[in-house]
Amino acid sequence: MIVIAEKLNGSIPSCAKAIAEKDADYIRTYAKKQADAGATFIDVCASVKENELETLKWMIDLVQEVTDTPISVDSPDSRVCLAALPFCKKPGLLNSVSGEGTKIADVFPVIANTKWDVMALLCDDTGIPKTAGKRVEVFDVIMKRAKEYGIAENRIHIDPLVEMLCTSEDGIAMVVEVMSYIKKNYPKVHISGAVSNISFNLPVRKIVNQAFVVLAMNAGMDSAVLDPTNQDLMGMIFATEALLGMDEMCMEYIGAYRQGIFGVKK
Amino acid sequence: MIVIAEKLNGSIPSCAKAIAEKDADYIRTYAKKQADAGATFIDVCASVKENELETLKWMIDLVQEVTDTPISVDSPDSRVCLAALPFCKKPGLLNSVSGEGTKIADVFPVIANTKWDVMALLCDDTGIPKTAGKRVEVFDVIMKRAKEYGIAENRIHIDPLVEMLCTSEDGIAMVVEVMSYIKKNYPKVHISGAVSNISFNLPVRKIVNQAFVVLAMNAGMDSAVLDPTNQDLMGMIFATEALLGMDEMCMEYIGAYRQGIFGVKK
Repeated sequence: MIVIAEKLNGSIPSCAKAIAEKDADYIRTYAKKQADAGATFIDVCASVKENELETLKWMIDLVQEVTDTPISVDSPDSRVCLAALPFCKKPGLLNSVSGEGTKIADVFPVIANTKWDVMALLCDDTGIPKTAGKRVEVFDVIMKRAKEYGIAENRIHIDPLVEMLCTSEDGIAMVVEVMSYIKKNYPKVHISGAVSNISFNLPVRKIVNQAFVVLAMNAGMDSAVLDPTNQDLMGMIFATEALLGMDEMCMEYIGAYRQGIFGVKK
Repeated sequence: MIVIAEKLNGSIPSCAKAIAEKDADYIRTYAKKQADAGATFIDVCASVKENELETLKWMIDLVQEVTDTPISVDSPDSRVCLAALPFCKKPGLLNSVSGEGTKIADVFPVIANTKWDVMALLCDDTGIPKTAGKRVEVFDVIMKRAKEYGIAENRIHIDPLVEMLCTSEDGIAMVVEVMSYIKKNYPKVHISGAVSNISFNLPVRKIVNQAFVVLAMNAGMDSAVLDPTNQDLMGMIFATEALLGMDEMCMEYIGAYRQGIFGVKK
């Protein structure tokens, strides 16, 4: 499972405060904690109204002081992501593009001949499609463009856009359909998403998040934006990999437990 | 989800002690706790070498002092189950029969014209089949016999026999295949099983159990032997029902939370 660690995000109040107060220790501490907990990428999102690029540089520099884990450069503005790539010592994840506007035309040529991964959201200028069929259409357009630029499938992470369960009439059937399509037709493409969106507005969100991860992994999800210091969630991911036959004799599960990735008394 | 509450079982050391010491309060307390936590049936298993029937009567009487929740009469000896049925004030679950010996021939005619449910294990005189195909063969024989006796599909719970994950090379693929066959061909038959078997010999068993329940429910499981006072597991079941589209707008999930079935600070 590719873990995109989510805690360094200005949309989280404590992180917004740290950014406003230039609290370097906060950034370093969470970068280190998430790296130690098994993050594949450390997501860095400024979520500020002014000086976004400068803030990203400040955050990225601090993260790189304490860990070699690659950065996920996160901004709703793909051009800001592109401008921040040179701050990173090694290739990471550009988070994100989508079918909207000129995002793909801006980003794909720049990363084409690099080792950067890219996150692509299944929405376009019409918004977030309501049906699986329409999301798959957006996906197919993204893959067509990726092929034009020679971006390998295994560098692409697709966020099918998980929406809150509390207003759904058929659970996650639609997003599972999208995931299954991707898995079947492009098995090397990573299926990703922000796990905690599913539980918005519900009580005991962690339980819904955990159950969602299991079902999403069953449908092909192999990448996710989540908090790697959440031991129950990380344990659930290792358990699910074993249950799905991706971990013979549970060696990875047992190894992660021995490393303290989950199951440590708190 | 049909919850067969597992705590009153002489194979659990504290329960064995209570049985040996005739500790009536222990039996009453766990019966009440499990009923309050949302049990559909209270499983009662003596697991004693001598006086099994007498012990079952003692336990069943105590359970019925504190709750109206139906009993799951549990013995490896189907004839002991049959002999204990008259102790129950209302129809419950006979746990269990299988393809072994004369179990079906003994039990099915007796319960045919009653309202008793029955648990059937997918093993026979050759033991526990190693392949999905062989288990399905046992299942088909059981269903053929049920039809002969006019036992409705929705009175039958099938335990496909979940085995420990730690020695598996392909996770739960085989048991999922059996569940999927049952679900497709006999949608009214309940798919059941003892959840905690899956995690035998692994660390942090509760995480493996929880992930297993989610995947098993996805494959059609709608009945399970488990501990309803395990709030995280119960929460996971309600969350999964919502994710699988069986709980519009999460009303059941939210209702169970409000009733204190899960999410209560401990």
